[in-house]
Amino acid sequence: MAQRNIPERLLTAGLDRFHGHGYHGTAVQDITTTAGVPKGSFYNHYASKEALAVSAIHQYIADSPVQVLFDPGAGTAVARLRAHFDELRRRFEDSGMTRGCLLGNLSNEVADHSETIRTTLETAFTAWVTLITQVLDAARNDGEIAADLDTADTASFLLNAWEGALLRARASKSGDPIDAFYALAFTVILKPSS
Amino acid sequence: MAQRNIPERLLTAGLDRFHGHGYHGTAVQDITTTAGVPKGSFYNHYASKEALAVSAIHQYIADSPVQVLFDPGAGTAVARLRAHFDELRRRFEDSGMTRGCLLGNLSNEVADHSETIRTTLETAFTAWVTLITQVLDAARNDGEIAADLDTADTASFLLNAWEGALLRARASKSGDPIDAFYALAFTVILKPSS
Repeated sequence: MAQRNIPERLLTAGLDRFHGHGYHGTAVQDITTTAGVPKGSFYNHYASKEALAVSAIHQYIADSPVQVLFDPGAGTAVARLRAHFDELRRRFEDSGMTRGCLLGNLSNEVADHSETIRTTLETAFTAWVTLITQVLDAARNDGEIAADLDTADTASFLLNAWEGALLRARASKSGDPIDAFYALAFTVILKPSS
Repeated sequence: MAQRNIPERLLTAGLDRFHGHGYHGTAVQDITTTAGVPKGSFYNHYASKEALAVSAIHQYIADSPVQVLFDPGAGTAVARLRAHFDELRRRFEDSGMTRGCLLGNLSNEVADHSETIRTTLETAFTAWVTLITQVLDAARNDGEIAADLDTADTASFLLNAWEGALLRARASKSGDPIDAFYALAFTVILKPSS
């Protein structure tokens, strides 16, 4: 294959390994083996495993299902938010309830030890919270949710609850934590003012 | 020191290392070095790093602040639940917003790869959810929270939201995700029927 494909293959392999085996569970050689490239070629393209992890986070975000949050064909604001989590749930179930969220995994495993990766994660989460806040603002304007709900706090809380539900679903190999997420998020928190 | 202290020192060192550096970020030699015992002595006391991790999870649970959940001097049921999270928050802040929850960390890092550790985590989380459910049942009986709230789902959801808030707080090195947890948990979800 063409030499110019090597960085892309390293990125795809790195994302897959980091997501499936974690940061410390992934050696550079695992990545080059998965990518099918010579081990020595790694450092021609990435300064370090940490640098590749930053690129992998960016790629993971680019692949995330955020378009549906703003798809006029996907219904009301709350319906669009639900569709967003439905797609995240589908991906998680397709993986046999493994892997979870790369952002959450790396936050727990690496944020304390790499300032570069931590700030990349922080930026990614902040962007995600901002998108959900915009959807909740639309829901509030349309009277779909309580007028006195703080949309930024709620967006942050729901995202955190989702991350925790994935973590628990992996520990229990059960969808129950995700069912509880839906029940509380969409029945108790996101409902019109009573 | 006496030979009989070695297993205990390995357990203390293992818990500290797993909590601070994760499972794959901890080698057996890190544990024996931290414990100040010869590397070769490890396998006299633990069959494997995995076996020590199981013991470390048990120790972590034994150290968790669950007594306050049932302390009659700590106020109403909701006040006791808040005191429980207050203590968890205090410990997290005392660590400089690092380390997070050992159960959450190992769920994200190891649950997919060790069935022994996964089932230990599942059992620990289930026990924790059961305790919180009991507190919420008391709160419901006392009219502190809505009569139609499913206490088991709510307990699971709150625990997951807490795990996610810790994860996000580590990524952002900020208490904001924990503030959002308190705002939604104690203002929106746990309130009397309106």
